[in-house]
Amino acid sequence: MKIKRSARTIIIVQELLNRPHHLFPLTYFADELGVAKSSLSEDIGLIKETIARLQLGIVETVAGAAGGVRFLPLIGAEKRAKLAKELCQRLQEPERIIPGGFLYMNDIIYDPEIAGWIGQIFASRYVYQPPEYVLTVETKGIPLAMMTARALGVPLVIARDDSKVTEGSSVSINYVSGSTRRIQTMALARRSLPRQARVLIIDDFMKAGGTARGMKELLQEFEAEVVGTGVLIATVEPEQKLVGDYFSLLELVNIDEEKKQVEIRPAAWVTQPLAEEEGLWQL
Amino acid sequence: MKIKRSARTIIIVQELLNRPHHLFPLTYFADELGVAKSSLSEDIGLIKETIARLQLGIVETVAGAAGGVRFLPLIGAEKRAKLAKELCQRLQEPERIIPGGFLYMNDIIYDPEIAGWIGQIFASRYVYQPPEYVLTVETKGIPLAMMTARALGVPLVIARDDSKVTEGSSVSINYVSGSTRRIQTMALARRSLPRQARVLIIDDFMKAGGTARGMKELLQEFEAEVVGTGVLIATVEPEQKLVGDYFSLLELVNIDEEKKQVEIRPAAWVTQPLAEEEGLWQL
Repeated sequence: MKIKRSARTIIIVQELLNRPHHLFPLTYFADELGVAKSSLSEDIGLIKETIARLQLGIVETVAGAAGGVRFLPLIGAEKRAKLAKELCQRLQEPERIIPGGFLYMNDIIYDPEIAGWIGQIFASRYVYQPPEYVLTVETKGIPLAMMTARALGVPLVIARDDSKVTEGSSVSINYVSGSTRRIQTMALARRSLPRQARVLIIDDFMKAGGTARGMKELLQEFEAEVVGTGVLIATVEPEQKLVGDYFSLLELVNIDEEKKQVEIRPAAWVTQPLAEEEGLWQL
Repeated sequence: MKIKRSARTIIIVQELLNRPHHLFPLTYFADELGVAKSSLSEDIGLIKETIARLQLGIVETVAGAAGGVRFLPLIGAEKRAKLAKELCQRLQEPERIIPGGFLYMNDIIYDPEIAGWIGQIFASRYVYQPPEYVLTVETKGIPLAMMTARALGVPLVIARDDSKVTEGSSVSINYVSGSTRRIQTMALARRSLPRQARVLIIDDFMKAGGTARGMKELLQEFEAEVVGTGVLIATVEPEQKLVGDYFSLLELVNIDEEKKQVEIRPAAWVTQPLAEEEGLWQL
């Protein structure tokens, strides 16, 4: 079946966007679309240019026998700034304040579209050195971690509050939750992760950093290399967290329960171009 | 800035696929792309035809002032059957059997690509009557429920094992887990769900159906209408579940720990065309 060039472009872009970071051999598309590999280069060139114009990422052609084409999500600084600003506006709504000085944000972090953007922003930092796994601990960070894993084309791994009989043997550690100062347990099924994997830690919120440190300690048991720790929101205070190298999309400056005011702002890196995006959007 | 037709098509398809079930007014694309609305109809026609050819869903044009264009995921029977068969093959690997007769499947249900396909298959059943929310209970069902919510363009809601101080006031119920016969608690933050919402329940596994019945009871407290209950795997025994109206993608016939054998098959509806897809793929 002969497929028109314009339809071909739709098919290719659809496959690329559906599986970020997956390298599709050119023969895959050539066979699927019934065209010579040489005919594909013009299609791919157009896709590359359009995705760059939208500041959504890089469509990369890898030469050679093991080569092909892949889509690497990289949300440009301008778009990141816009998304972060919109998030701040919504998170500052006074009715989100929960007694005890907490911020209700489930409606935002469980929204697939928003979580999808956040995941793509986190993935933007690892465009050329993607991790092999994304780790989170149950429960609230799971949707964000899932969408980050999706954008990186890697599996998600979920640590549990306790070991589960349905997951087989597991490794568990105790850690001190930074804010409540309570001793808690975190467990990960042995089969979840091979030894010496490269892992990105994702969570929704960081105050003292106790949970993130717990995840790092758990990963040590698997001899994993932690490539980074990313959270949606980190509090400005305490400045000194229990983990050193983390990044957050937003910074929570203050919640004033009395005045019903929330102060939250994008982290500095969000609105500045990443090294990886330099020269990328000029067409 | 003038954009070529072929680039226009890429931009439109990218936006449509990124936000399933979202109705984009034609003026949105006309403004974004700097073209007259009339020029868009040819682009959209081509996208519609190509998405149907791939059996991925319906690109629907809604006429009138409040109209526009949207993408409704609907995975065709042929593609559903292929995906379900591949899943069965993987789930039947003998090394998945965990002492106690459980099946390890985290690597599959936490894989964003696989979870994405499963979510789109679940969403296929609600293409013309989508729910307003997708509900699951922590933890293992969350990635599947998230990808189902994504495919339906609606928020995810997560019930917890216990009420959490960070989520404000909540409603909690007790239920008897069907397989362990233990009394458990399930809680949902009051702000998670408005009254009388239409809700789809999603989970990874159903044996007796106690957890699903718990979720239904929890939803009654919110006067919600349950539009359906979908699980990835339901056991064939007990045939009589604690909830009447559920569907599963796969059916677990038997796990034989001694012989290291797992028998699992696609549910009948998966491989048969849905009423909604009749005549849809003929071009």
